[in-house]
Amino acid sequence: MTGRVVPEQWRSSGATVPRGEPGTARIAVDLLGGDHAPDVVVDGALRACQADPSLHLTLVGPADAADAVLAALGPADRRRITTSLATAETVRSGVRAVADGSVDAVVSAGDTAITVLAAARELGRWTGVRRPPLAAVLPTAAGRLVLLDVGSTVDPDADTLTVHARLGAAYASVVHGIAEPRVGLLTIGVEPGKGDRLRRALPPLLAALPLPGGARYAGLVEGNDVVAGTAADVVVTDGFTGNVLLKGLETAYATAGPPAPDSEMPPRAALLLGVGGTVVVCHGAATGPDLAAGIGFAAELHRRASVAAIANLLRYSEVSHD
Amino acid sequence: MTGRVVPEQWRSSGATVPRGEPGTARIAVDLLGGDHAPDVVVDGALRACQADPSLHLTLVGPADAADAVLAALGPADRRRITTSLATAETVRSGVRAVADGSVDAVVSAGDTAITVLAAARELGRWTGVRRPPLAAVLPTAAGRLVLLDVGSTVDPDADTLTVHARLGAAYASVVHGIAEPRVGLLTIGVEPGKGDRLRRALPPLLAALPLPGGARYAGLVEGNDVVAGTAADVVVTDGFTGNVLLKGLETAYATAGPPAPDSEMPPRAALLLGVGGTVVVCHGAATGPDLAAGIGFAAELHRRASVAAIANLLRYSEVSHD
Repeated sequence: MTGRVVPEQWRSSGATVPRGEPGTARIAVDLLGGDHAPDVVVDGALRACQADPSLHLTLVGPADAADAVLAALGPADRRRITTSLATAETVRSGVRAVADGSVDAVVSAGDTAITVLAAARELGRWTGVRRPPLAAVLPTAAGRLVLLDVGSTVDPDADTLTVHARLGAAYASVVHGIAEPRVGLLTIGVEPGKGDRLRRALPPLLAALPLPGGARYAGLVEGNDVVAGTAADVVVTDGFTGNVLLKGLETAYATAGPPAPDSEMPPRAALLLGVGGTVVVCHGAATGPDLAAGIGFAAELHRRASVAAIANLLRYSEVSHD
Repeated sequence: MTGRVVPEQWRSSGATVPRGEPGTARIAVDLLGGDHAPDVVVDGALRACQADPSLHLTLVGPADAADAVLAALGPADRRRITTSLATAETVRSGVRAVADGSVDAVVSAGDTAITVLAAARELGRWTGVRRPPLAAVLPTAAGRLVLLDVGSTVDPDADTLTVHARLGAAYASVVHGIAEPRVGLLTIGVEPGKGDRLRRALPPLLAALPLPGGARYAGLVEGNDVVAGTAADVVVTDGFTGNVLLKGLETAYATAGPPAPDSEMPPRAALLLGVGGTVVVCHGAATGPDLAAGIGFAAELHRRASVAAIANLLRYSEVSHD
């Protein structure tokens, strides 16, 4: 399987793009992405390599940063590293490596807007997806919850959020294995007429929307529901509100503990949905462990062919490069 | 001192409005406000009465609910209860009691929009305050933080948020005793150009804004900063984002514990700023203990003459009833 997402039924059986060994995951890592790059990215790449012997990394960035990773690894592990020297547009090089099939996914903690633009241009967007959202996962007392968008789309219109609702429902179905995901709209009060202009326009559109994977629109939810997780499995909001809430809750959980004693913290990384490949975005302030978790998350998504499965569920058979 | 806020230097020394004994606080409680009214409000009123022997309550609502409070109190405590029978517009009656000086403050868990409208009409707004914000307090690892607006103002313009920045700075100075409050603007990335249209327009306006109490504009902050509390003492945002973040963080702290081991949870109640009296708003989903905390908070604000002090700091000498 290649990094480029082509849903299974349209995939050519005679594909000539080189592919990894079974179980391997080939991940491009943007060494220059993030507030503390390249040091934390070097640290994250090393941690990821050491945690997963089937991981192959393509390090995209300056020679000294790539050398720092190689120097810290033994000869056997070094064979799992490819370097792609660049001092600018590193995320774009990583995305191109997904597009040409030389890697299975790309991970960056760089500027979200630049990553989204590179992904849309190099990988194309699924038909109907004008503004690809970032989907994050939060732990709740009732299980994992998908929150989107968390920073790709500011000032969205109502149509954009309906597209995101479909993408989020497919994500919860495929990645979290939820049978009939409940999709909630984040707002500030459940009585009719509450919320801002955007939120007041959305309920009838969402109620009438065909959702994939047996998902259904579960109505209005509030900030507390994103913690409790009892009202929805997928929570749709604009990228401004989603980013603020995600960063607040992640930090609260990191400081005070998770919302349920046995809940495991998901990776602090988000999947870019609606583009023709697996693109994982970490926070600009990501630490080495965060980067390692993001790389591990990208590898897991690849091994489970999650992005192709999401596309299939939504019956997206082609990407557009308009 | 009366409930009506007239800054000290303009207060008539020959005021004829009846006032409470020194140390007493006379609080109107909206028995019909909130998702679980009147039961949780009855419970909250009882808890507040029992916790504070200098509290006098005016219960605004139906007879049976008021009777439930009276029946649960001993004869001595019953003398601290006044009933104001009403089955509609209860919050408006409570606000009117503040306006005519028969109580010192009003507390409601009812619809925020209705409370804000009643307060603006009956108490007037301070000059220059078109859209009074709700200011909430959150615990952080570094102390208490003022977050505003948390639900009064959706779809605000940039000018509105500059007014809120001044109100929030005065609140932190007066209520939290912070010498030079740092005022941050909540956004989703600290690089220039990040954020939505509203947020991109605000930094130059905030940087040029005269702030009260020695406050200064501390720049852009993110969701994590509202938890950490190290970057700002006051965080300004629109009422949609603020409400979502507040409800998320309050629930996270209630579930997982506060952000610092020794941090005490502030009342889950917000002060309406910029109107001519003390108006405290609880969440629609408030519990009995939340209501009691809100009543206690209103009493404390009255005893410390906080709202008049905020008005004085901002040199608001008059209210407008336009």
